[in-house]
Amino acid sequence: MTTVTDATVTDLRFPTSRELDGSDAMNPDPDYSAAYLRLATSDAESAGHGFVFTIGRGNDIQAAAVEAVARRLVGRDVDGLVEDPGAVNRDLMWDSQLRWLGPDKGVMHMAIGAVMSATWDLRARREGRPLWSTLAALEPAELVALVDWTYIADYLDPGRAREILEERRPLRDARIAGLRRDGLAAYTTSPGWLGYSDEKLVRLCREAVADGFTTIKLKVGADTGDDRRRLGLAREAVGPDVALAVDANQHWSVPEAIAAITELRDFGLRWVEEPTHPDDVVGHATIANAVRPVPIATGEMLASPTLAKQLLQLGGVQILQIDATRMGGPHDLLAAILMATGAGVEVIPHAGGVGLCEAVQHYAFFNAVCVAADTRDLSLEYVAHLHEHLTDPVEITNGRYRLPTRPGASTEFQPGTELTFGYPDGTEWAG
Amino acid sequence: MTTVTDATVTDLRFPTSRELDGSDAMNPDPDYSAAYLRLATSDAESAGHGFVFTIGRGNDIQAAAVEAVARRLVGRDVDGLVEDPGAVNRDLMWDSQLRWLGPDKGVMHMAIGAVMSATWDLRARREGRPLWSTLAALEPAELVALVDWTYIADYLDPGRAREILEERRPLRDARIAGLRRDGLAAYTTSPGWLGYSDEKLVRLCREAVADGFTTIKLKVGADTGDDRRRLGLAREAVGPDVALAVDANQHWSVPEAIAAITELRDFGLRWVEEPTHPDDVVGHATIANAVRPVPIATGEMLASPTLAKQLLQLGGVQILQIDATRMGGPHDLLAAILMATGAGVEVIPHAGGVGLCEAVQHYAFFNAVCVAADTRDLSLEYVAHLHEHLTDPVEITNGRYRLPTRPGASTEFQPGTELTFGYPDGTEWAG
Repeated sequence: MTTVTDATVTDLRFPTSRELDGSDAMNPDPDYSAAYLRLATSDAESAGHGFVFTIGRGNDIQAAAVEAVARRLVGRDVDGLVEDPGAVNRDLMWDSQLRWLGPDKGVMHMAIGAVMSATWDLRARREGRPLWSTLAALEPAELVALVDWTYIADYLDPGRAREILEERRPLRDARIAGLRRDGLAAYTTSPGWLGYSDEKLVRLCREAVADGFTTIKLKVGADTGDDRRRLGLAREAVGPDVALAVDANQHWSVPEAIAAITELRDFGLRWVEEPTHPDDVVGHATIANAVRPVPIATGEMLASPTLAKQLLQLGGVQILQIDATRMGGPHDLLAAILMATGAGVEVIPHAGGVGLCEAVQHYAFFNAVCVAADTRDLSLEYVAHLHEHLTDPVEITNGRYRLPTRPGASTEFQPGTELTFGYPDGTEWAG
Repeated sequence: MTTVTDATVTDLRFPTSRELDGSDAMNPDPDYSAAYLRLATSDAESAGHGFVFTIGRGNDIQAAAVEAVARRLVGRDVDGLVEDPGAVNRDLMWDSQLRWLGPDKGVMHMAIGAVMSATWDLRARREGRPLWSTLAALEPAELVALVDWTYIADYLDPGRAREILEERRPLRDARIAGLRRDGLAAYTTSPGWLGYSDEKLVRLCREAVADGFTTIKLKVGADTGDDRRRLGLAREAVGPDVALAVDANQHWSVPEAIAAITELRDFGLRWVEEPTHPDDVVGHATIANAVRPVPIATGEMLASPTLAKQLLQLGGVQILQIDATRMGGPHDLLAAILMATGAGVEVIPHAGGVGLCEAVQHYAFFNAVCVAADTRDLSLEYVAHLHEHLTDPVEITNGRYRLPTRPGASTEFQPGTELTFGYPDGTEWAG
């Protein structure tokens, strides 16, 4: 019998604030970080990896929470864990004492997400498949059974979810072949950080087009005049055929969002991201109604399927940007993807940070294979930094993600990363 | 100059699960706990106390978060802190790296709340007043300036909030005199825990009436047949003139809530509490519309003013049950109280647990003195356990809270509590 023998959690921090990579209207100085979990087993070849992405301070608290949850798996039989991850998910999510600390949000919720991600990484590795393929191999009824429907079945009936999955089933193999050949479109945020100079913005926009990207996202929100100038420069640099999206990172109140988007809309925005507080579903609906047909997008701070449900119910989002480590793990993400498809809303995952591209690509590909009604316009975010720290970094060719082929969830960090970027003792931080 | 010299955080846990005190449909075995902060200063007479209430596991993570936030106040000048707590609140709430871990929800948010509560306790003690009086002494403009209006001004204009406070101002002194004489009505949940036998329920209901309580709350949700039986027994025990409220502790989905409330409504319910997931504002509105005029109540897990705003916007609550340690501290609570009053919605605080009655009574009295349009029907929850662990326990006379008179926020635990209930080394837990 193979058992989980240890749960090791590492506080990894990358000093991204030094170069203003990742700077936006709300996050002027992020140090991209990961509370990184490694589940070791009695089989030296079998391990599971998961993490929560944070932006610096507090990563120690997040790491402590991941460790407290993960410790509960130590000693468990690995076969039992990976055969019924739904049971593990229920045990953790419905532990009433832990649930009090959310519910379904914040540090404890993300910690459960990291543990469930590591459990799925372990399962996919033992199957010898990439995670997207492990999910795509499940029958519709099995996928539906992974979701906790308690608070969302009033919006999407589990029977209807199964029907959707059955309808897509005959397309699966052809879709996989197409994705293996063509990959999935990436859009890039790398040129558009708020801390960059105009010169750097223009240069990076041109490079992005040359690299094959067809959508570029700019950070906005601090000053609408500046935003118009930067959008004008970007439009000039990329030409008429490349789409421009903007991201306000919650900088606006509801009326401010409506006013600003109205001023920016003549740039033909592909979407406006995080216009206001992520929990303000009524506010998102008010904004979306006022600026229609400009699509509103959010998700990187959307904590739960319960909140996603309401955004869809009220028409507050036209693009749902699931994030690999914000919700409570694979089961929540599956719920969100199914609800979005049921509502005819695009799923364009959030990525960037460190490890988020690697982790979320599996859900984007799974969506493209098994869930989405139409795969032609699907894409996901790409930011060009820190990939070297992962053992299975994303591959981008001509502005498109290649289909992952290696076993697991691509959530393992390089073994040496801790020595350099472990906080506070790694060589980058000590002294 | 007086400075903050230390921030000590203690993990206090009380083994309430052994007697099923506090058992409900979602929390079968809570161990009432507090992540308890003591801010020491260079003046031995001056200290500040705050805590986050939890129900057991995870209290260590909550304590670590409180400590991480509180450490930032060590070394600060106390006069500066207490003169401008709004600045402290902004610094902590808008620390972009910490904000990522919420935003405005979960472990990190509640940690900020405990630190801000301790700051206000320190201020009230230095003024020699109970906290409600410290707040009531502020001018309307000062109170309005304490609130972070970023995401809520689209619902309640700060100018309108000030007008409301100005309108109540002439009533203040007479209201204080009345509350000093009569106190504020308590309602009791002590008879109604789900784990109690019918015999115990009936006996405790009779005792509650004899003790002067005019509203009694029963836990429901696990089984509607049982709920009807228990409500019938309670009605028989208390007679026709005592109000009965019920609390489902989020046990229902939206359609289940509508069905169950419809079956229970002939008991003339004073309110139905936490019918479903606390973040489902759309669901609360759907339920409230379907069961009108049965009032819907929620709040003990309502994380932020942004969520409270939406419940009010959509008519999802008729009673807002603010909780002393769930939101991010006094500034968030003030926002919630002002929005509720602006909407004509009753504020009936949640309490119980350990220390929650002591902490929240100050906001209930402040609301009664400065904010509420009408004080006749105001009340707050009372649960009759664990008060002996606080240095300034609530006083209940004939079913009514007495107006607190001792300096501070009533948030200090007895010095000896840690020796007995500190986790895991206190005598109750060790071995």
